[in-house]
Amino acid sequence: QGILERLDAGEIVIGDGGFVFALEKRGYVKAGPWTPEATVEHPEAVRQLHREFLRAGSNVLQTFTFYASEDKLENRGNYVAEKISCQKVNEAACDIAREVANEGYALVAGGVSQTPSYLSCKEKTEVKAAFRKQLEVFMKKNVDFLIAEYFEHVEEAVWAVEVLKESGKPVAATMCIGPEGDMHGVSPGQCAVQLVKAGASIVGVNCHFDPETSLETVKLMKEGLQAAKLKAHLMSQPLAFHTPDCGKQGFIDLPEFPFGLEPRILTRWDIQKYARKAYDLGIRFIGGCCGFEPYHIRAIAEELAPEIGFLPEASEKHGSWGDNLSMHTKPWVRARARKEYWENLKPASGRPYCPSMSKPDGWGMTKGARELMQQKEATTKQQLKELFQKQKI
Amino acid sequence: QGILERLDAGEIVIGDGGFVFALEKRGYVKAGPWTPEATVEHPEAVRQLHREFLRAGSNVLQTFTFYASEDKLENRGNYVAEKISCQKVNEAACDIAREVANEGYALVAGGVSQTPSYLSCKEKTEVKAAFRKQLEVFMKKNVDFLIAEYFEHVEEAVWAVEVLKESGKPVAATMCIGPEGDMHGVSPGQCAVQLVKAGASIVGVNCHFDPETSLETVKLMKEGLQAAKLKAHLMSQPLAFHTPDCGKQGFIDLPEFPFGLEPRILTRWDIQKYARKAYDLGIRFIGGCCGFEPYHIRAIAEELAPEIGFLPEASEKHGSWGDNLSMHTKPWVRARARKEYWENLKPASGRPYCPSMSKPDGWGMTKGARELMQQKEATTKQQLKELFQKQKI
Amino acid sequence: QGILERLDAGEIVIGDGGFVFALEKRGYVKAGPWTPEATVEHPEAVRQLHREFLRAGSNVLQTFTFYASEDKLENRGNYVAEKISCQKVNEAACDIAREVANEGYALVAGGVSQTPSYLSCKEKTEVKAAFRKQLEVFMKKNVDFLIAEYFEHVEEAVWAVEVLKESGKPVAATMCIGPEGDMHGVSPGQCAVQLVKAGASIVGVNCHFDPETSLETVKLMKEGLQAAKLKAHLMSQPLAFHTPDCGKQGFIDLPEFPFGLEPRILTRWDIQKYARKAYDLGIRFIGGCCGFEPYHIRAIAEELAPEIGFLPEASEKHGSWGDNLSMHTKPWVRARARKEYWENLKPASGRPYCPSMSKPDGWGMTKGARELMQQKEATTKQQLKELFQKQKI
Amino acid sequence: QGILERLDAGEIVIGDGGFVFALEKRGYVKAGPWTPEATVEHPEAVRQLHREFLRAGSNVLQTFTFYASEDKLENRGNYVAEKISCQKVNEAACDIAREVANEGYALVAGGVSQTPSYLSCKEKTEVKAAFRKQLEVFMKKNVDFLIAEYFEHVEEAVWAVEVLKESGKPVAATMCIGPEGDMHGVSPGQCAVQLVKAGASIVGVNCHFDPETSLETVKLMKEGLQAAKLKAHLMSQPLAFHTPDCGKQGFIDLPEFPFGLEPRILTRWDIQKYARKAYDLGIRFIGGCCGFEPYHIRAIAEELAPEIGFLPEASEKHGSWGDNLSMHTKPWVRARARKEYWENLKPASGRPYCPSMSKPDGWGMTKGARELMQQKEATTKQQLKELFQKQKI
Repeated sequence: QGILERLDAGEIVIGDGGFVFALEKRGYVKAGPWTPEATVEHPEAVRQLHREFLRAGSNVLQTFTFYASEDKLENRGNYVAEKISCQKVNEAACDIAREVANEGYALVAGGVSQTPSYLSCKEKTEVKAAFRKQLEVFMKKNVDFLIAEYFEHVEEAVWAVEVLKESGKPVAATMCIGPEGDMHGVSPGQCAVQLVKAGASIVGVNCHFDPETSLETVKLMKEGLQAAKLKAHLMSQPLAFHTPDCGKQGFIDLPEFPFGLEPRILTRWDIQKYARKAYDLGIRFIGGCCGFEPYHIRAIAEELAPEIGFLPEASEKHGSWGDNLSMHTKPWVRARARKEYWENLKPASGRPYCPSMSKPDGWGMTKGARELMQQKEATTKQQLKELFQKQKI
Repeated sequence: QGILERLDAGEIVIGDGGFVFALEKRGYVKAGPWTPEATVEHPEAVRQLHREFLRAGSNVLQTFTFYASEDKLENRGNYVAEKISCQKVNEAACDIAREVANEGYALVAGGVSQTPSYLSCKEKTEVKAAFRKQLEVFMKKNVDFLIAEYFEHVEEAVWAVEVLKESGKPVAATMCIGPEGDMHGVSPGQCAVQLVKAGASIVGVNCHFDPETSLETVKLMKEGLQAAKLKAHLMSQPLAFHTPDCGKQGFIDLPEFPFGLEPRILTRWDIQKYARKAYDLGIRFIGGCCGFEPYHIRAIAEELAPEIGFLPEASEKHGSWGDNLSMHTKPWVRARARKEYWENLKPASGRPYCPSMSKPDGWGMTKGARELMQQKEATTKQQLKELFQKQKI
Repeated sequence: QGILERLDAGEIVIGDGGFVFALEKRGYVKAGPWTPEATVEHPEAVRQLHREFLRAGSNVLQTFTFYASEDKLENRGNYVAEKISCQKVNEAACDIAREVANEGYALVAGGVSQTPSYLSCKEKTEVKAAFRKQLEVFMKKNVDFLIAEYFEHVEEAVWAVEVLKESGKPVAATMCIGPEGDMHGVSPGQCAVQLVKAGASIVGVNCHFDPETSLETVKLMKEGLQAAKLKAHLMSQPLAFHTPDCGKQGFIDLPEFPFGLEPRILTRWDIQKYARKAYDLGIRFIGGCCGFEPYHIRAIAEELAPEIGFLPEASEKHGSWGDNLSMHTKPWVRARARKEYWENLKPASGRPYCPSMSKPDGWGMTKGARELMQQKEATTKQQLKELFQKQKI
Repeated sequence: QGILERLDAGEIVIGDGGFVFALEKRGYVKAGPWTPEATVEHPEAVRQLHREFLRAGSNVLQTFTFYASEDKLENRGNYVAEKISCQKVNEAACDIAREVANEGYALVAGGVSQTPSYLSCKEKTEVKAAFRKQLEVFMKKNVDFLIAEYFEHVEEAVWAVEVLKESGKPVAATMCIGPEGDMHGVSPGQCAVQLVKAGASIVGVNCHFDPETSLETVKLMKEGLQAAKLKAHLMSQPLAFHTPDCGKQGFIDLPEFPFGLEPRILTRWDIQKYARKAYDLGIRFIGGCCGFEPYHIRAIAEELAPEIGFLPEASEKHGSWGDNLSMHTKPWVRARARKEYWENLKPASGRPYCPSMSKPDGWGMTKGARELMQQKEATTKQQLKELFQKQKI
């Protein structure tokens, strides 16, 4: 059964978690470039992570092709050995995902994401060519459907959807935006409308914000679609980091990004709340992005098990709401084996010298540039270009 | 070169991280029982984790035999299929560790830990028999040396060391205690003295407390040994969770244990401080326990790279002190590519409704029992037994 | 010179601080009723507080007639001895304020605030009669101008202004609302328009929210007036408590109200930031409400001293930005004698077991009632009445 | 009845609160010098504060003679007009205290505190002469008893007690130290022994630390006296600021001292816990120091009302454990009218960008000097002198 058949039938589809963050901690991805050459260099590590998500309940395995467009890989050339071509990275990603998907009943989704070509103001034809190059691999390897994800500019996302639609396969599209909309100031509702008009069957958000903020954004998308009398399935793949203090550009501007985010990691119980809230909002493609580890995906599957009808394989190693603590030797730990306990816990940070919130920064720029940047006018491509040139960035 | 040759030569030996917590999050270990049947059920997952620690710089791979004594596995029998015998679990653990160790130049250490037999007041002979059963496997599989770890009672640790010494192989011994000493009130200094007298060549602590507290404890052990004019190498494998608010029994009594500890996870920079401090204290066997992921071990290796002389393999995917952020597109993120930034960052929790510290609990018990428990007198085996029987635990 | 002459000339007018909170801590006012019978019972305490505000820089002394309408005093009858009539309380308040005002060059403002009559849905005539009764005293005692303050419903505030305007004296009007507007959902901008149309020459907010939120509200008022092409002077008298976590009804719904607000008290440096921000926003009548102690008012006067041209008397006992710490015996305390230090200090709470934010509550009500209450529809008088009757309040 | 008769009879004696901090906020005392010239300059302000403490339940009014030794006043000469002599300040303080004491049934205690003469290494004779000069005024004005308070060095405290004992009046002595003892490293137990041997009938601590830490210190004093088989009454007058993060020198080294301590202010409920704990420890002279406002003293009186037998006058304006909130219009505020609510409240700071604890500083000094200072060896007078001279302090 394809992705649309499942969603049309009202089924819940569980996505997977965040590869670049998980594999960075495991030693296979470099923070900063965030490119997926590990598919070629260390396929066993990528395979194992796919397998863990599958066991945790993922119904969709995304090819590990984040930032795997040719321009991005070249741009980060010093990190990638010459012989690891864009094509090889993408092909290996497809092969690994398919191999693991066949261990269960998961779908494989080929994914593209935003390109340096767009950010450096290349022409539409050139940007589209980058997506098309990846798409060719996805078609050759016959993935089940396609996802355009992690776009800050709806214009580029629309271009990506247009290219992916050439394949005839179902297309999902998620943007890494919050309630304030994209970097040109296009509202979430308008973004959703444009993406659906371009051909996306599933729209939503991924990355950059925590579940609470992301669901708020998807809600605005839903309202935008309703107002425009358009139909589409909804999807959310947020961070597994608490980010109540983010600005418009999300967690990247937090002082803790990317090497000090630990205190913000969501617990499994936070995830269960997210899963329920997403479901109640009408979202049926529910997954995660950076910070989501296998146990976070399992928490989605466990929260929605009553609706889904069964538990994932990895739940053999997990009791619902901590109930296998009832075997602990200490009576007061046994007393934690219940839903009310974990649901209401306000976990301490163990960091009395740290605050609970941060001010997002931007202080590396000149004050004038920062102010310009913070105005939405500055985010037109031309202004950004001038701005960056002026600062010799 | 064996472990003692390396330590005698003044070399730094980097341990590995925490298997039960890491594999619980990956979906292969059940919290509560914490038993390692995954070595038989899912060897590829165990192998992958070993490999990640090896790449991160571990010089010692511990067999994943934590809580793998026969009495423990039986005690948790409902979780372990009958056909997965104690022997099979231990043998598989040895095979996997050796296979991965051979991919680099690491040593394999066979490990035993505290037993339910001791806690339920079985005889010395019976407790020793449990250790001996595991030791037989370690000898058959010819591990490089042995570790007795995670003991709350020095008496049991001494028994373990005595058994392990029968093998003729070097023995390390670590207790899961803090500066207040073991559950009978034996001071860290006295614990160290007893362990060395029993035959341990390396002593220290593992688990239950954060690096800061653990190093304080090792310092007391060092002073105890000096006062007794005994010589031994020092070892520390603390938690990767901040626990300034722990009581005598460590993180198990924190309300967040084990499913809400996320906000307490140490950053890589916290680990670098730990590694330096451990080194300065004279500790040369430096690793981690619960919460330590591969990137935490890599942080030890990177901090001590000047002393060691080279970086671990996984550092190819990591810049020192975030220096590959210098390639980031946003100038204010690029400004984070320096040591001073990460060293001084006070990371926010993103949880404004949560406190920074917790009161350890024990409230599931009757008040009388808790008070008794909190007095060191209550921790003699006889009293504990009566106490637990009185409460029908 | 009268209040309007001063404001028309562009002068800064500094208000006073919060009497009920300050005198509650000094032992003369009861929390809950918050009535000002102390003017009769303990005039020396009221006089001393007026004097401290005068010394701190207040240009306006408000008569201590908060909640001194006859219906309120009767309503709280068990707290007020029969012989302390409404008239006596108001007269004494005028006499004390005038006596102290004459020690300097301050104006005396007679003040009225919201009434139980309105909240219990009495007729307009009856509500207005309550204000008129207080006004008679203010006329007899010849106060300099009048303030209608602490109104949650703009309808009642308009009635108050209408009554006060009968006197021919200048009238200021402040509401205890946030950016979401009054309890009927009237926006701040609309509230301001209605108040000015009713005759108020000065409008703004007091109480219920911290300076940051209050200034946001005054900004909305300013914009509302501009859109309506109306002119009025602006005024702000916020709390001296940090309340970023407040809901629509302000600090009363915080779990800490009124006996656990200490950790939220603003420092003098927080106040200086408020004063500057208020000034930059075009507000010229700048004072405080609950939580404002004399040193907070002095901080306003000191921050705006460059514009005002002189320092208040109490600054003889205060160095600018802590500069008289330069005489301290400890060198590291001397190092605190500078603006940058105090401006950037993030003061710790010393309370590691407490969070930084609270969820406002309402849990004493039935869930249905609370939900109704939280919808703006519930705040029409009729619905509130029914709601309260249903709950036998 | 005198102080000793009351204490010997087992009565509770309630002290007063902190004058310098309260009057600084009211605009009459300069932070840094902290000298009490307000007794001459603004007697009405001093009188009013005494009266508030009396109403709140204080049984002892201390003359406002803190830092009123001649050497201190001269040392701070630029703050004190020439004509305000040491004698005048002390005489006025006695007169005001007596006047207010006569409004109730309170005792007047003349107080001396540590001197610059001692800190600058003057001879014993000279230091004693400073105390004697103040004592002469106390004798002339016939105070009821004497208190030597706020001493960091037990040697100087002993000299003070010796001088005060010349009067024949009862003498109390409190040091501003924590559990680590005085600045020369003399333990609290030894300090207590020396003070009692010098003639003090009442010993304890005041200032520098929060109630929890201060009670720990008094406990050590009590144990020291018991070990030495000496008898004395115990006394505690701690800060009303939470200081769990203080070093040996107390709150002065906290970065928030003295102008950012607001978030640390104790609630009335914190004070009730202190009062009960002090009582349970056997302390019978219970008061406060810096940060204690009248309502904090009232909280002591209310907590101990069952033992004392009556409530203080100011309790007419206060319900026990918030019980007069039961009259509030909002049902969820009424629900706060109970002991369990306030007893268990963890009050939020409203400051999400601030931490809960600070590192005490000392960074204004050279590193070498700070290290020397932190060693107890550096605190011998000779070394301190050299140290300070070297740094031209």
